[in-house]
Amino acid sequence: MMPLPPNFPWPEPGAPLEEVLTPMPVIDEDRLAANIARAQAYMAAHGLGFRPHIKTHKIAAVARAQVDAGAVGINCQKLTEAEVFAGAGFDDILVTYNILGPARLRRLVALNDRVARLVVVADSAETVAGYAAAFAGGKPLAVAVECDTGGGRCGVQDPQAAFALAQRIQAAGGLRFAGLVTYPAPGGAARVEAFLREAMALLAAAGIDCPLRSNGGSPDLWQAHLVSSATEHRAGTYVYNDRAMLRAGECGRGDLAMHVLATVVSRPTPQRAVLDCGSKALTSDLLGFADYGEIEELPGARITSLSEEHAVVDLTGCTAPAPGVGDRVRVIPNHTCVVSNLFDRIVFHRAGRVSRVEDVAARGTVW
Amino acid sequence: MMPLPPNFPWPEPGAPLEEVLTPMPVIDEDRLAANIARAQAYMAAHGLGFRPHIKTHKIAAVARAQVDAGAVGINCQKLTEAEVFAGAGFDDILVTYNILGPARLRRLVALNDRVARLVVVADSAETVAGYAAAFAGGKPLAVAVECDTGGGRCGVQDPQAAFALAQRIQAAGGLRFAGLVTYPAPGGAARVEAFLREAMALLAAAGIDCPLRSNGGSPDLWQAHLVSSATEHRAGTYVYNDRAMLRAGECGRGDLAMHVLATVVSRPTPQRAVLDCGSKALTSDLLGFADYGEIEELPGARITSLSEEHAVVDLTGCTAPAPGVGDRVRVIPNHTCVVSNLFDRIVFHRAGRVSRVEDVAARGTVW
Repeated sequence: MMPLPPNFPWPEPGAPLEEVLTPMPVIDEDRLAANIARAQAYMAAHGLGFRPHIKTHKIAAVARAQVDAGAVGINCQKLTEAEVFAGAGFDDILVTYNILGPARLRRLVALNDRVARLVVVADSAETVAGYAAAFAGGKPLAVAVECDTGGGRCGVQDPQAAFALAQRIQAAGGLRFAGLVTYPAPGGAARVEAFLREAMALLAAAGIDCPLRSNGGSPDLWQAHLVSSATEHRAGTYVYNDRAMLRAGECGRGDLAMHVLATVVSRPTPQRAVLDCGSKALTSDLLGFADYGEIEELPGARITSLSEEHAVVDLTGCTAPAPGVGDRVRVIPNHTCVVSNLFDRIVFHRAGRVSRVEDVAARGTVW
Repeated sequence: MMPLPPNFPWPEPGAPLEEVLTPMPVIDEDRLAANIARAQAYMAAHGLGFRPHIKTHKIAAVARAQVDAGAVGINCQKLTEAEVFAGAGFDDILVTYNILGPARLRRLVALNDRVARLVVVADSAETVAGYAAAFAGGKPLAVAVECDTGGGRCGVQDPQAAFALAQRIQAAGGLRFAGLVTYPAPGGAARVEAFLREAMALLAAAGIDCPLRSNGGSPDLWQAHLVSSATEHRAGTYVYNDRAMLRAGECGRGDLAMHVLATVVSRPTPQRAVLDCGSKALTSDLLGFADYGEIEELPGARITSLSEEHAVVDLTGCTAPAPGVGDRVRVIPNHTCVVSNLFDRIVFHRAGRVSRVEDVAARGTVW
């Protein structure tokens, strides 16, 4: 019985992209660098701090490039994501999540001791009470109030509630009120600005400092300057971009840093091709689209359905020559952040050659 | 600087389920065992071989229980899944995928040498040519013809094409024609039977043996006996079941072996709750539903949207008392197979206590 080789081969730097096995997301180094530089320059021009959200890539080296470009720190969505990035040396981390329960709170104490500048959020008295109980002694925990400015997810509902929760944080031993955090609905700049101003006025009148006003979202990246009361903006998707960002006009085709490489594995009928990138490569995220991605080489073709390891492509409207079995294509995913989350490693390239293979270090950090 | 503990705590056997950190899929041992036994008994009663698809769980111990119950072997969807399960000792594997390209074909030769009974599929002359080139010497590769009997994914389109491809396989040195494989549309038994019969008649008339006739699908699990020409049936989802299987009437509520444990992390308004199971825990698979899962403890509540780490719940129609921040709930996922694929480890339980934690060994096998 022959033993199997232990690992599937990963391409060496310099290998042609054609040798990368599919399905695999690949990142264009030049587009990545340009995306990082462009967003950072925009924020700097408007006097805004920029805090990239690492949920999009979960890769330490990409976050390092973002911070090296001038980011004030990073944004994580989960405690364990923050742990991974703290372990990689990042020392200014905002975790935009209510962290609950004794096991997580014990970890949060250790994380707070390790990270120079750590801020978490709360939108309820219950969350604040948990923080207060865990941080009764030692280094205080910086807690910002999460505000719902129209995003319809988490967050206190009005400036009065934000003010009341800030007072509760201030009054708790071991906690320090850090400021206000929001993730608005797209196009919500005016509402964010009004919410922040009113909450800041209430806080100022009570003599409570509010140094952090953190606004967010890639869909509103280039409108961030419209929220003049914000001190910083958070965004994740801009670093790779995707089909949803393209549709929103927030990036051009030349800014799409991620493609999912795929292979035509079947041509069952003249109008149907099947790719090897199913829902376990692209995810089922539609984000309002009626299909599951766009194929660069097959304009007008539509990925009409996904099963787990297959994408069914309708070639009816395709204006390019029909592909053959074994042909390779590049798919623009609807949503880049969830694609990263499916892969343990991701391939980077420049000018058609592999530049590096990066561990998606914070993939699998579910808590 | 305090070092962080290296790993987030996994529960020990015997720990109450309430100690399992969320979000986390958990598997009910008794329901799992009953699902395995029930499907196997049904197939045995109808003289059908049963070949569980491991894509649903990707866990060696679960596949072992399926084989111990009487399964003829296992079904994998990708070469690397088959490698993982071959490494775990499984010696009868059907890979229902066109395997293309020199890197994969080299691995396939090694896998074929290792596995006692390995069968792969082809639905094109290109795929057969690849197999033939790679298997010119040594142990022959058993190749079945994949047939499209209405599923609209891969597969040759009619019995004549199946016959022609079988002849091509027979004529190639190093290959052996193994039979016919199909993954039909739900409710497609009559069409599958007609396709198989016609193809088998053509093969018989040419003196070509067709020992394997493999039909598939959990949605048609209990109608498998309607395809009397099949020698075996393949199914994956039945082992855990999910909301889609429940809707289809293929399982009862007491057969739902997987729940995703989640915690209420925010209660921003009287009608809104937010859970910590977003699209990175449940996936965005809708499978025809208008929402993203059902919450056992909150009948009438609807998971109206997912972001990556949050599920937004509309409590308007909820007939149970509204939950508080920190409350734990059990979500029935729309689609169990894609949930497994997001987690490195999964917790099993019996009577409210953790029984074991299993590695999702074939997660991350993307090729």
